[in-house]
Amino acid sequence: MKNVSIDTITQAFLDYCGDDTDPRTMFVLQKMVEHMHAFAKETELTHAEWARGLKFLTDAGKITDDERNEFVLISDVTGMSSLVDMIGSQHGGTSSSVLGPFHSVGAPLLPVGGDLKKDNDGTTVVIEGHVRDIDGNPVEGAVIELWQTAENGLYYSQDGGQDDFNLCCSMKTGPDGRYAMTTVKPAPYKVPDDGPVGELFRATGRTPWRPSHLHFIVQADGLKSLVTEVFANGDPYLDKDAVFGVRSDLIMDYVETSDLDALPDDLEVGRDVTLPYYKVDFDFTLVSEPN
Amino acid sequence: MKNVSIDTITQAFLDYCGDDTDPRTMFVLQKMVEHMHAFAKETELTHAEWARGLKFLTDAGKITDDERNEFVLISDVTGMSSLVDMIGSQHGGTSSSVLGPFHSVGAPLLPVGGDLKKDNDGTTVVIEGHVRDIDGNPVEGAVIELWQTAENGLYYSQDGGQDDFNLCCSMKTGPDGRYAMTTVKPAPYKVPDDGPVGELFRATGRTPWRPSHLHFIVQADGLKSLVTEVFANGDPYLDKDAVFGVRSDLIMDYVETSDLDALPDDLEVGRDVTLPYYKVDFDFTLVSEPN
Repeated sequence: MKNVSIDTITQAFLDYCGDDTDPRTMFVLQKMVEHMHAFAKETELTHAEWARGLKFLTDAGKITDDERNEFVLISDVTGMSSLVDMIGSQHGGTSSSVLGPFHSVGAPLLPVGGDLKKDNDGTTVVIEGHVRDIDGNPVEGAVIELWQTAENGLYYSQDGGQDDFNLCCSMKTGPDGRYAMTTVKPAPYKVPDDGPVGELFRATGRTPWRPSHLHFIVQADGLKSLVTEVFANGDPYLDKDAVFGVRSDLIMDYVETSDLDALPDDLEVGRDVTLPYYKVDFDFTLVSEPN
Repeated sequence: MKNVSIDTITQAFLDYCGDDTDPRTMFVLQKMVEHMHAFAKETELTHAEWARGLKFLTDAGKITDDERNEFVLISDVTGMSSLVDMIGSQHGGTSSSVLGPFHSVGAPLLPVGGDLKKDNDGTTVVIEGHVRDIDGNPVEGAVIELWQTAENGLYYSQDGGQDDFNLCCSMKTGPDGRYAMTTVKPAPYKVPDDGPVGELFRATGRTPWRPSHLHFIVQADGLKSLVTEVFANGDPYLDKDAVFGVRSDLIMDYVETSDLDALPDDLEVGRDVTLPYYKVDFDFTLVSEPN
């Protein structure tokens, strides 16, 4: 196009692309560019503002390494990660929530009732529940992965003082679909705020804190995998989770009790439970894979 | 917000921001997030697609260094740089066009009629014209900067074989508002296509080529600075400039001639003009600074 103008540039972009471009790729790019251009026009974006935006991305690139990805964090704190999660979720099952950057493949397999707490400091949490399908039938052989912070608010991968895979495990349900384990209550923590995202937070008066949560992935043959988080009722950051992860069906009561009779019979390490401890019951409902 | 949903997440983002956020910042962020979220919803963007997008940005960060900024290139090839240019341009003067990444501050000052060609290979171009205000009055003391590629399609900053500031100069107009210089015809060139932008080009059947062009910045007291480019009529890439820079008033005829009498009298190096040479006449019109 020899005379690109404000009114023709979006069409020019589309016209530049070849006819044999993958149709889905073309559709996604079309919508992306339509929204980028509409954003610039509606804001009458200035050179200086756009240069600031490009510096934000350039700075994000500089602070990104194998351990930390600022682009994922930007996605998280703008709600994009959470939105894409929700768009991809089937209705009827347990809500999904953000995966986050701290999942590690290969956590050790614990038996049902196993001990994840080991010698970690903090109040004991006994969490148990069932994995069921949408009709309420128990799911045998479902694989649950759990990962969480220690009491200091750090995941093992962020903290040289923790063993590899500390407070991370996988667990396979038996015929009754049940899982159970001992752990500690995770702490609220801040998302990294020493980079561009931190500047954004400070410019907009936002808090970088996430409410306390346990991460879960639940997978079973023939059912849609679930990536989610379970939050603690009463947490001060439930209403302003920096990454928009909270759903009402993912908020659990951490019931404080000293009743040792309430402990599951198969709990491996009942003897190490601190008193009082927290009892959490949480069931997962998985929907069928879409055909 | 305890129960963020597809329908409430955009408002949740706005609610998270403090009341004392700078109003313009808040407006730009609001529009940015509204368009990002609408993009995800309209495309029903999948996890895998969004992960691909974040990898694209992560890869852009990896290939970006002090010499090369892939984010600026993404802005260029999506039309954002050009669109922001056009939004910021005043009507009535010479069209603006993209600055690009190859402008260097501090190019040597040539007298009017000076020689920029020196010992560069290529067909001689004699370019001259006037800087005028919107009423047609000559602008005295306007400072013109020109930069361009050599015949190999590379700017000096990309090419160890060229001297510093090769084919870059500044020039100050006299009372008649005139500029004139000898140079060579710049070559079409490809934008860098060995990174994420190259992948985008290949996925969409786009060409990375830019038509041949001379870059200009024209500045004068009391008038709005102009950043623009001048293209060669007949160039094979005029209709598909990878960065959307072409405007019809920026396409010039490179008139081939062997008529030495057509050379400006003040041309320093008329003796070195190859025959035939190209004569280009291009006038700049600057608009007043907005009050």
